[in-house]
Parts: sequence; C-alpha cells; structure tokens
Amino acid sequence: MTTELSTDALAGLLDQARQDYAALAARGLKLDLTRGKPAPEQLDLSEDLLSLPGGRYTSADGTDVRNYGGLQGLAELREIFAEVLQVPAGQLLAAGNSSLELMHDCLVHAMLSVVPGAESHWVDQERLAFLCPVPGYDRHFALCERFGIEMIPVPMTDAGPDMDVVERLVAEDAGIKGIWCVPKYSNPSGVSYSDETVARLARMETAAPDFRIFWDNAYAAHHLTDEPVEIADLLGACASAGHADRAFVFGSTSKITAAGAGVAFFGSSPANVQWLLANNAKRSIGPDKVNQLRHVLFLRDADGVRAHMERQRALLQPKFETVQRILESELGGTGLASWTVPKGGYFVTLEVPEGCAKEVVARAGQAGVVLTPAGATHPYGDDPQDATIRIAPSYPGLAELEQAILGLTACVRLVGYEKLLAA
Amino acid sequence: MTTELSTDALAGLLDQARQDYAALAARGLKLDLTRGKPAPEQLDLSEDLLSLPGGRYTSADGTDVRNYGGLQGLAELREIFAEVLQVPAGQLLAAGNSSLELMHDCLVHAMLSVVPGAESHWVDQERLAFLCPVPGYDRHFALCERFGIEMIPVPMTDAGPDMDVVERLVAEDAGIKGIWCVPKYSNPSGVSYSDETVARLARMETAAPDFRIFWDNAYAAHHLTDEPVEIADLLGACASAGHADRAFVFGSTSKITAAGAGVAFFGSSPANVQWLLANNAKRSIGPDKVNQLRHVLFLRDADGVRAHMERQRALLQPKFETVQRILESELGGTGLASWTVPKGGYFVTLEVPEGCAKEVVARAGQAGVVLTPAGATHPYGDDPQDATIRIAPSYPGLAELEQAILGLTACVRLVGYEKLLAA
Repeated sequence: MTTELSTDALAGLLDQARQDYAALAARGLKLDLTRGKPAPEQLDLSEDLLSLPGGRYTSADGTDVRNYGGLQGLAELREIFAEVLQVPAGQLLAAGNSSLELMHDCLVHAMLSVVPGAESHWVDQERLAFLCPVPGYDRHFALCERFGIEMIPVPMTDAGPDMDVVERLVAEDAGIKGIWCVPKYSNPSGVSYSDETVARLARMETAAPDFRIFWDNAYAAHHLTDEPVEIADLLGACASAGHADRAFVFGSTSKITAAGAGVAFFGSSPANVQWLLANNAKRSIGPDKVNQLRHVLFLRDADGVRAHMERQRALLQPKFETVQRILESELGGTGLASWTVPKGGYFVTLEVPEGCAKEVVARAGQAGVVLTPAGATHPYGDDPQDATIRIAPSYPGLAELEQAILGLTACVRLVGYEKLLAA
Repeated sequence: MTTELSTDALAGLLDQARQDYAALAARGLKLDLTRGKPAPEQLDLSEDLLSLPGGRYTSADGTDVRNYGGLQGLAELREIFAEVLQVPAGQLLAAGNSSLELMHDCLVHAMLSVVPGAESHWVDQERLAFLCPVPGYDRHFALCERFGIEMIPVPMTDAGPDMDVVERLVAEDAGIKGIWCVPKYSNPSGVSYSDETVARLARMETAAPDFRIFWDNAYAAHHLTDEPVEIADLLGACASAGHADRAFVFGSTSKITAAGAGVAFFGSSPANVQWLLANNAKRSIGPDKVNQLRHVLFLRDADGVRAHMERQRALLQPKFETVQRILESELGGTGLASWTVPKGGYFVTLEVPEGCAKEVVARAGQAGVVLTPAGATHPYGDDPQDATIRIAPSYPGLAELEQAILGLTACVRLVGYEKLLAA
C-alpha cells in the first residue's frame, strides 16, 4: 500500500477518521450486517402463506398432502421451479426447508453409499478434496471442514472461477471430488458465471470419475436491476458433454418466501435423482407436502415467482443503492477500498488494503456495527490477504443501514490511514 | 404343527377355506393393510392446522418464526412435548417433519463425527452392530442395512426385549453400539416395556463406552383403552445410573396431527443435545418454526394433546375392535393362529403356523388384500419361523377393514389346513 499524499495530509485524514470513529462509538449503535437474512418487510410479502392452504389438502394428482409419502415432492411445485432452476421437473426433487441440508446430505450419502460413477464410498477414499472459488460462502466451507474434506482455493474472475486453474487441478488429481459454485449473483462477490465458464465446467476432463459440481443456485430469481442476468444451463451442458451425472443443482425459496419455512430443491441427472431418492427413502417417509401445496397456491407459476421477486427487489434495491452511495461518497477516490456493484443476490464485497480486513471488522464491532468475520469468505476462515469484507445489507432498515455503512467506512479510513502512516 | 382333527374333518375345513378364498378373490378387492398410516378422518381432526398460524408469526420470546435461526426449535412447543416424551424441555430439540430423519441423522453424525463417550468415528470402528428386538420395525432395520450395521436379533417378551440376552451381549461385545426400542405399544407387538426392563437398560454395563439406546417413543400418547400405559423415564434412569449419555429419545406428531407435516423431537442428555445441535448447525440454519408455531397454537398444551388423542382413539378403537372380533370369530379355537391385543399404538401382530406367513401374505395379495411383506418384522427381512404377520388397521374404513380381515383369515385357514393335510 502506497500513497502520494504527504505525511501531513495523511495525518489530517487520520485525525478526521478518528473523530468520526469516536462519534460512531459514542452513538452506542447495535447494528448487524453479518448474514444474508431477509428483512421483516420482505417476509410480509408472503403473509398469505400463514393461512394457506386453508381448506385444501389434495395435490393436482389427488394425493392427500397431509399424509405420508411422495418422496420426490409435489409435481406442480416442481413444475414452477423447473423453469427458475433450469432443471426438468421430472429431474427435480422438492424437499424440506433448507437447501443447505440437501448439500449436506448429498455429501453424507456420497461418503456412506456409492454415488453414481464412484468406485467406492467417499469415506474409503485415500484423499478427498473440493475446489473452493474464493471469495465464497462460509457455510459451504463449514461442510467441508465438518467432513474432513480438504479445501483448495481457486481465484474468482469476473466470469466465475479461474477455469485455467480449475481444469488443471481436476485433470491431474483424482482426490478432487467436487467444486462449490454459486453461479448467479455469487455469494459474496455478485459475479455471475459466463456461458464459457459453464461450458468449460461441463466439458472439462476430471481425473475423478465421480466428480460433482455443487451448483448452489441460491439467487436464481433474485435480481436487483432491470437487466436480469441469465446463466447457461449447466445440467444440459453436462449431459451434452457426456458428463450427465456431474451436476448437483440446489435452490430454495428461502429468500423468495420465508427464510425458515420455505421449500428446498435438488436437481440432477436421472441417475443422481434416483440415487438421492433411494437414500432419502431410508431417511424419511416424505417431505412436508402441506408446505409445498402452500407454496403452489401462493406462487401459482413461474410468472408468479417473477412478480413476487419484483416486489422483493423493490425492498432490496434501495438498500443496495444506499450501500453504493455511501461507499462512493466516503471511500471513493481515497485509494483505500474497492467494492462490487452486484446486479442481484444478497451481498456486496468490500476490498480493503492488504492486512486491514480483520482490524476493520474488529473496530466496527467495538463501535456496535457487527460484520461477518473477516476471513469467512475463505476456506478455513483464512483470507491470506486479509482484505475481503462481506456486507449483507438486506436485514436492517434503510436508516440503520445508512448508519452502519457510514460507521464501516469510518473504520476503513481509520485503519487504512493508520497503516499508511505507519508505512 | 399337529392337530387332533381327522383327515376327513380337515378336508372339510380346507374345502370351506377354498370356497371362502375363491369368493374373496372373485370380489376383486383392492385393500391395503401395509403401513401404519392415519386415515383421512384422523387427519381431519387437525383441519385447523391448514389455516394456522393465521396472522401470527412471533414466538413467545419474540422471535420472528418466518426467518432463519432457532436451531433447537420453539421453546413453547418443547414445553408441551416435554411431558409427553418424558424429557425436560431444555434437553428437547424440535425439528422437521420426521423422527426417522432424526434417527438417520444421529447414526450419520455418530459415524462421521465423534459421539460423546466414543473413542473414534463409528465408520472407523472395526465392527458395528445393533441389537434388534424382534418382531420390530422394518424402517429401523433398513437404516442399519443402509449403513452396514450388523443386526443381532433379540427376542421380545411381554415386558420388552429379553434383558438376560441383552445384558449378556452388550457386556461382552464392544462392537454392539446400540439397540432399537419402541418402548410403548411397540411396533408391531404392542408390548410396553416394564419398569424393570427400563431400569435394567439404564444400569446394564456395556463393553462399548459409546453405547446408545435408540428410544423410538412413537406411540407415547397413542392409547386405545381407558387405562393408558405409562412407561418409566429412561432418560432419568440413565442419568441416575451414571450413564447419562446412553439414551436418544425420539418422538413426533406424525400420528398426532399430520403424518407428513408434523414436528419431530429428539431428547437426550445435555452433552448429546449439544452434540446434535453442533452437527445440525453445519447442516441447516434452523427448522421450520412456522410449522412449530402452528402446532403450539393448535395443541396449546399437554392437556390439549391428551384431548386430541382421545379424538384419535375414538376413530381408531372401533377398527382395532373389528380386527379382534373377526380374528376371534374366524380363527378362534382353530389352533391356526394367535394374535396380540394391543392397548395402544398402530398394529396387531398375527402369529400363524411355522412356515406359513409368506404363503398367507402371498395368497392375500393375489386376492386383493395387500399386507406388510412377511419377514419385514425381522432384520434383513428374514423371519426364521416364517410365522409373523403385521396388521395395520388404521387406514381403511371400517367396512373395508372388515373385508380385509375376513379375507386374511380365509387365507390363514387355507394355507394352515393345506399344511396340516400335507403333514
């Protein structure tokens, strides 16, 4: 980190930052920007869910949704999300309230029973590793840690993971069994994968015959602009490339309807779907089909999802604009930070000077603005540059958010100018 | 199998049985007695659930149940089921819609992370075995098969598993890590464990330091008589005996409210609850708390559960009485069968002459009366006596049930007298 400013000028800027920080701390705020959690007004958009399905309890095919059974989930709900998630309804599975559960369970089932194409249970493999594009999602990394799966970081580009690196690694190392991807409006960078990235992921040669792409399409319908990003169809591309079983697609309504009471989806090749259904059949006598019917009656069809997501956008867009406005006004031209301008999703990534992220997060926390721990965006919580901070603007109200981002920028200036002066 | 009847008398009885079977087959029935599935009228008792929670979305402590979080589940729902399941609310966890899922996941977590008291992950153990009281529940056995856990049958007595056998086996074999128990109105025998059985399970010495009792209290509130059976408190007994971590207690509202859309529970020692919560924290951002609130508003308290179960009993008791009446009228005094008279739960066990169960089930199926496959009550689907048939009377209407049991008894007479004549 270098600067063209004189020491006097820097001292003045630092002094101002110190005053701003002191004023922030004096306010005794309690603001939380840690998680991508919908705000109450967003949940209010799905108020009708709370009294649905009302008198109804049969699905389109006459099934009594209150009773046991129906492992694959309601066909009419899968029809709605087939389009949203780019998976044919017949290859889609509607489950419980959490797609993270489905990712966890796919790992468990791969470890304890043989996934299509595998030579053995993954627990019996000598080495087990996943590629982790960074920055990425801490809950993906936590699953790897929990199961002792080695994480290999791969840098992100503006078009997705650096495919030169990915292709080289998977070609030479049969221990690499998978890659974590958030392909649209990625957590936390907002990047959407280019068609070329999707095509290369589908066709690349992998040393592991049972390699899987964990395609966490969490923000498939979560646009923030008038130009919704469309990504290429991974599942179709994998089938065309002769790697039909490579893609595990995940999605949910957690950030569409109710974060804790939505429906999660799994989509894949027929062989993988049969494999998961067979494993699930041992685990459960079926998902909560009443909640699935509730969602069918509320969302109606893919157009209903789109209309609902426009209402979500109306609540979220002003928050993201607030973040951009304050970052620009407080940090623009300082040379202390750069940040992403996402076209969808739930996060803004702020890059601060090397070695400053932890300190910024700590200072902000001490002044009442709680951020996602620095490092959370990297495997093992270790950001080697100590530079990446994830901002989650969805939950606080607009006024609170403005306070929080102002506070954060004061901390960036404080820590940044301190470093510059010490250099 | 012997008889005091003359060959002529037997031939006459067989002839009658053949006529009855032919008449049955001619009717072209399609009756299903395979699973312990609630009837639509039972589900109608919880009709109000379909429009709850209505306008409400906050729990007693002010949590917005629509949002993420709350891994342990709603405190007020745990309070209600603390009494039903004999587990302090603080040691109870309210989860998704299936207790089978919780049993599956406890096995998974024990295999892939270290359960309190264990020396290693169970997958790394040389040998892994569970005791299986027989007759028992096929879905328990299916979990063991799925994970390669050896199943060791233990005979059931009128007071629970034969504890002399259990104590001897667990004392000498450190590979035995658990036992499956349905302690009240057992599936399928209807047996409830005596206080002495519970006390011996709690205090017995086990070679495995990480031995677990999988206590599937599926029918805790599911009485069929005016004399509700109470079982001793296993969790308390284990703690008193110095084996606090031994019991995993499971239960659910599947056969209280909605079979596919209820709430499941896990109760155990504080150490085990922490262990499961820590593992669940990697898997999910919390259970469906809206459904939990729905159940709180509908059931209100433990008295509410009791009152609701009286209404369930009013629907189920006539069905169980029908089964008893027809078994007695058609098979009583024939020497061909004996059967259980359960005081609760969902099943009647019919014992037919050795070597006849598969044939009876096959003949019944051919005539349109589908029964649980013979052998399902035993590990690996193998009933060495080929004598046990499980009857699940809950789902059909009374008239259908009567037809089905009459048909079943015709098959028992047909197969039984054929065997006697061939002997």
